[in-house]
Amino acid sequence: MFLKTSEDDKELKKALKNLLGFLPGHLQFYITAFTHRSSNEDLVSNNERLEFLGDAYIGSIVGEYLFKKYPNRDEGFLTEMRSKIVSRNSLNDIALKMGLQKLIRFNKNDKMLRRSNIFGNCLEALVGAIYLDKGFEKTRKFILKNMLYNYIDIDDLEITDFNFKNKLYNWAQINSHVLDFVTLGESNEAGRRVFTVGIEIDGELFIKATGYNKKAAGQTAAQKALEQLDITTEE
Amino acid sequence: MFLKTSEDDKELKKALKNLLGFLPGHLQFYITAFTHRSSNEDLVSNNERLEFLGDAYIGSIVGEYLFKKYPNRDEGFLTEMRSKIVSRNSLNDIALKMGLQKLIRFNKNDKMLRRSNIFGNCLEALVGAIYLDKGFEKTRKFILKNMLYNYIDIDDLEITDFNFKNKLYNWAQINSHVLDFVTLGESNEAGRRVFTVGIEIDGELFIKATGYNKKAAGQTAAQKALEQLDITTEE
Repeated sequence: MFLKTSEDDKELKKALKNLLGFLPGHLQFYITAFTHRSSNEDLVSNNERLEFLGDAYIGSIVGEYLFKKYPNRDEGFLTEMRSKIVSRNSLNDIALKMGLQKLIRFNKNDKMLRRSNIFGNCLEALVGAIYLDKGFEKTRKFILKNMLYNYIDIDDLEITDFNFKNKLYNWAQINSHVLDFVTLGESNEAGRRVFTVGIEIDGELFIKATGYNKKAAGQTAAQKALEQLDITTEE
Repeated sequence: MFLKTSEDDKELKKALKNLLGFLPGHLQFYITAFTHRSSNEDLVSNNERLEFLGDAYIGSIVGEYLFKKYPNRDEGFLTEMRSKIVSRNSLNDIALKMGLQKLIRFNKNDKMLRRSNIFGNCLEALVGAIYLDKGFEKTRKFILKNMLYNYIDIDDLEITDFNFKNKLYNWAQINSHVLDFVTLGESNEAGRRVFTVGIEIDGELFIKATGYNKKAAGQTAAQKALEQLDITTEE
């Protein structure tokens, strides 16, 4: 809709001003960020490259935020907290709360798309667009203010420590599957012990993950399993 | 050595000036970056938290570099190129070429440590220290100039496309193992097809990875296998 006339550009600018808190400079970056490949296969015109860029800066800036907020927690804790915040489900949830579904252009006939994480991916692409348009500091502010402070309850996240594992056990019980967490190995990596924990479903190894302790490895494995099984992790 | 006197501080400052191309501000960040846990278990005093921070910014800034260098390549290519540049072996190699082994403090009685990737991890921590000391732009310049331009042959990396897979086949042949790449599954994620490729060694599933095409998934799986098997990927 908003590619056609300068009237549409004005509309988009207004919507972006509301969303971002500042006026966008180069509108084309944002138009690309809001274009899902289902509405444009051309890789320069759809949002997948911007998603790559935005995803990386979200990881860094959320990582830095956690690093500073938790000066006495180890790197395993920081990694775990970050993966909760930037998980596909979590970003999709934030994107929907921001209202990105009103701006994104995708093939509306494809009913599956609405149930996937295209909105979270669009949020990543939007961050990539902000970075290209306005640079690092504005991007950092957007992530800290518009994403974290507005939509993430960090203290709540900290307590819901075994959320992924619990969710998975819950799913197994409802669907009559037998779930087992098994330690598959232990190795030494740059002087640190690294554990590999696997999840068996009905006796078959389903997924595995590594971590600096068994708990962290189990959490990561459970999170990966939930994503692979397409089980939502929102409460 | 350099914690003891102000004379030592001067020495360190000089070494850092040579290494970084600028005078460090807060020396303590760098002292922490050069402290491996084998010489100090205290999590606030060793480099593991800084490694977490630096690792993330290296990923973002290398990602951005590739995004801009290859305006017509898709996100799968960018991801693959980045994982070659920031792999543990690659970073360890860069760290050794920079001479970080002369600055890092670790338990020299532990012979295994020298063969692990503690130098690459130290480089990540150093990037974290630069970020805290000097901010984003200086960090970006350090990564682009001191790491990429000096030590990475990007065009060469681009051609060595099947390097990981070849290396692994080579290892299998030398050690009389049977290697198989198997497609384990295909799913749809946000409107994109995602492939899971596994590597079987002597008929047993050893590792698996996902990607937006089979080639990329196979490459990632091969890279993970090489790291797990502790096979160096340098030529």
